[in-house]
Amino acid sequence: MKEVLGYIDDNNDKFLGELVEFLKFPSVSTRERNKKDVLDCANWLKDNIISSGFETVEVIETSGHPIVYAEWLGAGADAPTVLIYGHYDVQPEDPINLWKSPPFEPTVRDGKLYGRGTADDKGQVFAHVKGAESHFKKNGKLPVNVKLLIEGEEESGSTALMEFLPKNADKLKCDTILISDTSWFADEIPSIVYSLRGIAVIEMTLTGPNRDLHSGQYGGAVPNPANELCKLIAKLHDEDGKVTIKDFYTNVVELGAEETKALESLPFNEKDYTEELGLNGLTGEKGYSTVLRASSRPTLDINGMFSGYTDEGHKSIIPSSATAKISMRLVPDQTWQEITDKAISHIKSLVPDFMHVEIHGHHGGNPVIAAIDSPGVKAASIALETAFGFKSVNMREGGSIPIVEMFQAELKAPAVLMGLGLDGDNIHSPNEKFNLSHYFGGIKASALFLEEFAKVSK
Amino acid sequence: MKEVLGYIDDNNDKFLGELVEFLKFPSVSTRERNKKDVLDCANWLKDNIISSGFETVEVIETSGHPIVYAEWLGAGADAPTVLIYGHYDVQPEDPINLWKSPPFEPTVRDGKLYGRGTADDKGQVFAHVKGAESHFKKNGKLPVNVKLLIEGEEESGSTALMEFLPKNADKLKCDTILISDTSWFADEIPSIVYSLRGIAVIEMTLTGPNRDLHSGQYGGAVPNPANELCKLIAKLHDEDGKVTIKDFYTNVVELGAEETKALESLPFNEKDYTEELGLNGLTGEKGYSTVLRASSRPTLDINGMFSGYTDEGHKSIIPSSATAKISMRLVPDQTWQEITDKAISHIKSLVPDFMHVEIHGHHGGNPVIAAIDSPGVKAASIALETAFGFKSVNMREGGSIPIVEMFQAELKAPAVLMGLGLDGDNIHSPNEKFNLSHYFGGIKASALFLEEFAKVSK
Repeated sequence: MKEVLGYIDDNNDKFLGELVEFLKFPSVSTRERNKKDVLDCANWLKDNIISSGFETVEVIETSGHPIVYAEWLGAGADAPTVLIYGHYDVQPEDPINLWKSPPFEPTVRDGKLYGRGTADDKGQVFAHVKGAESHFKKNGKLPVNVKLLIEGEEESGSTALMEFLPKNADKLKCDTILISDTSWFADEIPSIVYSLRGIAVIEMTLTGPNRDLHSGQYGGAVPNPANELCKLIAKLHDEDGKVTIKDFYTNVVELGAEETKALESLPFNEKDYTEELGLNGLTGEKGYSTVLRASSRPTLDINGMFSGYTDEGHKSIIPSSATAKISMRLVPDQTWQEITDKAISHIKSLVPDFMHVEIHGHHGGNPVIAAIDSPGVKAASIALETAFGFKSVNMREGGSIPIVEMFQAELKAPAVLMGLGLDGDNIHSPNEKFNLSHYFGGIKASALFLEEFAKVSK
Repeated sequence: MKEVLGYIDDNNDKFLGELVEFLKFPSVSTRERNKKDVLDCANWLKDNIISSGFETVEVIETSGHPIVYAEWLGAGADAPTVLIYGHYDVQPEDPINLWKSPPFEPTVRDGKLYGRGTADDKGQVFAHVKGAESHFKKNGKLPVNVKLLIEGEEESGSTALMEFLPKNADKLKCDTILISDTSWFADEIPSIVYSLRGIAVIEMTLTGPNRDLHSGQYGGAVPNPANELCKLIAKLHDEDGKVTIKDFYTNVVELGAEETKALESLPFNEKDYTEELGLNGLTGEKGYSTVLRASSRPTLDINGMFSGYTDEGHKSIIPSSATAKISMRLVPDQTWQEITDKAISHIKSLVPDFMHVEIHGHHGGNPVIAAIDSPGVKAASIALETAFGFKSVNMREGGSIPIVEMFQAELKAPAVLMGLGLDGDNIHSPNEKFNLSHYFGGIKASALFLEEFAKVSK
């Protein structure tokens, strides 16, 4: 392993240069206009994986964006197999004006690489490609069999992968699923995530009059969809911060006392957290701490909202329509289909007769629980400590990776969420970044994981 | 008068061509980027007024957009003087994608001229320029002294005119103020408006976290400004549709039984009104009919609202901020300063401690009551009936022309609101239009008004 880690130290510049190339593609999967960029990105990634040492590499066409798949099975049928999963698509970059450097022109400042996708997930998944490369270049082989599956739709619901997975369970057969798409609990606290929240997404438009109306001529007599949308959304939480959708909490499994204690004993400073976000205070579901609210309780948030005149100055109208995009984060044993249906039906019941409503669910994903005592978790724990020099902790994560639950169910193998990011990486926000020390350390952690997984699987 | 009316009939094509030129300027006063267009429009208008027969025409610079002013005092010091007021600025054109023909490329379809400003107010004010032209061309003079004052900021609060007016009360001295910037009660019911609502406008932004946040990592723990904005706006009306701002109704003068009866006896078909707007039903302040709600009661409407991700698809964020643009229509004796102050102070009291708020008032205007028995009203009534062949009614209008109250107070002369538009003209909306029959009839009504005002003033 010494030579492998040495290769990594010697090739930081090369690894950074390649990641920068990878990040330049605006591979925004949710936007139709970036379809070609997503495809170009997949093809670039394929070429890079080939040059890294994998011989079997495919860009697999799907009903949506392509899947990049590679495998190296040279360790033999008796050796363990690791399936590494990640995604090369990214979140939209807006609001673009808040970026200090352009989102698709990656820029290093102060030891951090800024750009859309640096942490989520291009930087993290690419660390695995480079980890494997380091073994290939030094030893001509990997310590275990490796399958690489990098999709292009994680940020828009993994629809194609959800179709692909059950049909290709044999092809993807493995002993563990390794994923780096999460964050550490804090600086110097590497974390293995054993639970992810699920997600259900809906979009609704209320329509009143069939055109924007003069707010003087018609104001007072005609229902205003923007006012009505506000009234409706205000009804989706009660005074205790609980979501009011009928039967929303029915399937929620409350945490046990022991797990609650373990999570609440993680070193968390609420004052620092609040100040770093520029807030005067926090709020949320009554009866739960901030750590639990952000990781172990279901939520409902407006992600976007628009109606009427939104440009400079003022326009005296009653808008014809008002739209809200809403996401709900889910916890075991809620399911995204169940919650989507409940939300739609509840919201419809709140729409007054004089308003038209159009409402539909987007993609979704179920919450997931992973084992905390699998060989993969042991290997990840050693790899993180060796690569970074800090002991890792086990934690729940508030974000969602919709496909993880399906991976575990279809492949009958445990997932290991060995995150390399930090909460302050601004993922989904302007000025997303990835610390270079986390990138280079992550390449080492990946190389070490393969080595350790071979040992613990014996 | 026969020759004058004949001149109008003979010159319809010329009048239409000139109006089309006038309409091509995107003179949107609320948008900084259209400043040059507004100025160009003023200069074009000046040239047209000169060619119509006025000798003294000025483009007066102000702190904002210029005022176009012309006068003809050839009737002599003993003859009455009519001040004609209107505006050459227009509302923004968005949402642009809903226009059937481009907003600044005026197009005739089915006897109607479509384009931004056709009815509000370029078409209406230009009818007066052409009415005067018809007298000049046929008689070489006007029946009375005429002062033309056409401003460029009506749609953004008449700020410059409000400064100009008190300083130029002598220059503007007159016996009546004639304004065409309102609509008829219905097809075939020409209307003289004796009351306008006032307007107060505020804009507010709630800010939560200092950047957009990942709704998984932070959702549940961090306050969401979009959700909070909705909660706040929902509190601005009670269940009876009344505005809840503290002391909002204190200065409202309730209508007397006689006036209520007169207004409610105007021929209004609620079913047609509702259907034409594509609505299933109406709503509003409990205890008042639709006609009264739209003309004689104060209101609060969201005109525009935005937060977070508003593009195609979905983005899983807690937005950093959420903004609403709000207008309130006012009735006698509310004042816009009073209501702006009350609204700001009330809204501030509703903002939770954990949110930052920025809130400010835009321009405003006071409600106004005009005499219904002045010589000007008599002249307008005859002029409308002669020009269009229908008897006129007196009514209240829900819209606002902020400057009217100041005109009456500073010039000590009664205003006459001789509107030429229709409610279905889509003013402030896509596909604004002005019926050509109303334009040509309006030119006649203007020419007739001057003639009749000379008679009734004797």
